[in-house]
Amino acid sequence: MEEDVKDIYCKKPGEAMGLALKEAQAAAKAGEVPVGAVIIDSQTGKVLARAHNRVERDNDPTAHAEVLAIRSLSKQQKNARLKDCDLYVTLEPCPMCATAISFARIRRVYYGAYDPKGGGVDHGPCIYEHDTCHHRPEVYGGLSEEACAALLKSFFQERR
Amino acid sequence: MEEDVKDIYCKKPGEAMGLALKEAQAAAKAGEVPVGAVIIDSQTGKVLARAHNRVERDNDPTAHAEVLAIRSLSKQQKNARLKDCDLYVTLEPCPMCATAISFARIRRVYYGAYDPKGGGVDHGPCIYEHDTCHHRPEVYGGLSEEACAALLKSFFQERR
Repeated sequence: MEEDVKDIYCKKPGEAMGLALKEAQAAAKAGEVPVGAVIIDSQTGKVLARAHNRVERDNDPTAHAEVLAIRSLSKQQKNARLKDCDLYVTLEPCPMCATAISFARIRRVYYGAYDPKGGGVDHGPCIYEHDTCHHRPEVYGGLSEEACAALLKSFFQERR
Repeated sequence: MEEDVKDIYCKKPGEAMGLALKEAQAAAKAGEVPVGAVIIDSQTGKVLARAHNRVERDNDPTAHAEVLAIRSLSKQQKNARLKDCDLYVTLEPCPMCATAISFARIRRVYYGAYDPKGGGVDHGPCIYEHDTCHHRPEVYGGLSEEACAALLKSFFQERR
């Protein structure tokens, strides 16, 4: 985890996405593609992990926000399967992250902006639609879509 | 890297797959699903990274052999893109690993056993067949297929 999140509870999906957006803003500040993710306990709303894209800083092509949050929490819980956890992420997960989310047995995925060019949940390989996918989370796309998309848009506009 | 591989060169694909098989055997010994991976410099044949599945040991659902080898090498090279590298893995990559391989810009993937139940290259979501995949490695499946499949088969038979 990037910082101590032990005492934060989210009562509504919008609150958790707000934290994910804060992570995404921190990514942008650090020159990383602004995507942030948060994992909460679905029963209590407790924030268990949060992370943002660190591909550049870590020199790691797998260091997407979702993978980092999952990796951090599974180590913390000493369990590769994260039962009763929901994941919030500001951008539609790519196929790598969508699969990692399935492996981690995440219960629900809430995502912000749709990603027709690189998404793997509702676009491209649509990871959860195949018989070979052994765990399908419930998926809710488009939560705080405008704010999430605006952050990505301005990041890429500044870089052109 | 699991050990010093600075002085190993592979002249033929079978040699590199032999090293990947050794990694897979080490995984089996450690109680992990026996999959091993090796990355070599496609120009010189030099072994640059090797790894095996560590999902249980690391409590990390993303700790597949391919991801670990890529992560290790990209850190070593201080570059998230691994130019002119070929990856050898004993089992058809899952969708997560197939996508990580694409992100890392791996030139060629040689894999051993086919995986109709969980593979993501020639089965299930067929990651490289979508327009949203921005880098497609050349893929060669079925290299040392029998030895790779036999190792997996005996591992799962012992556990039933």
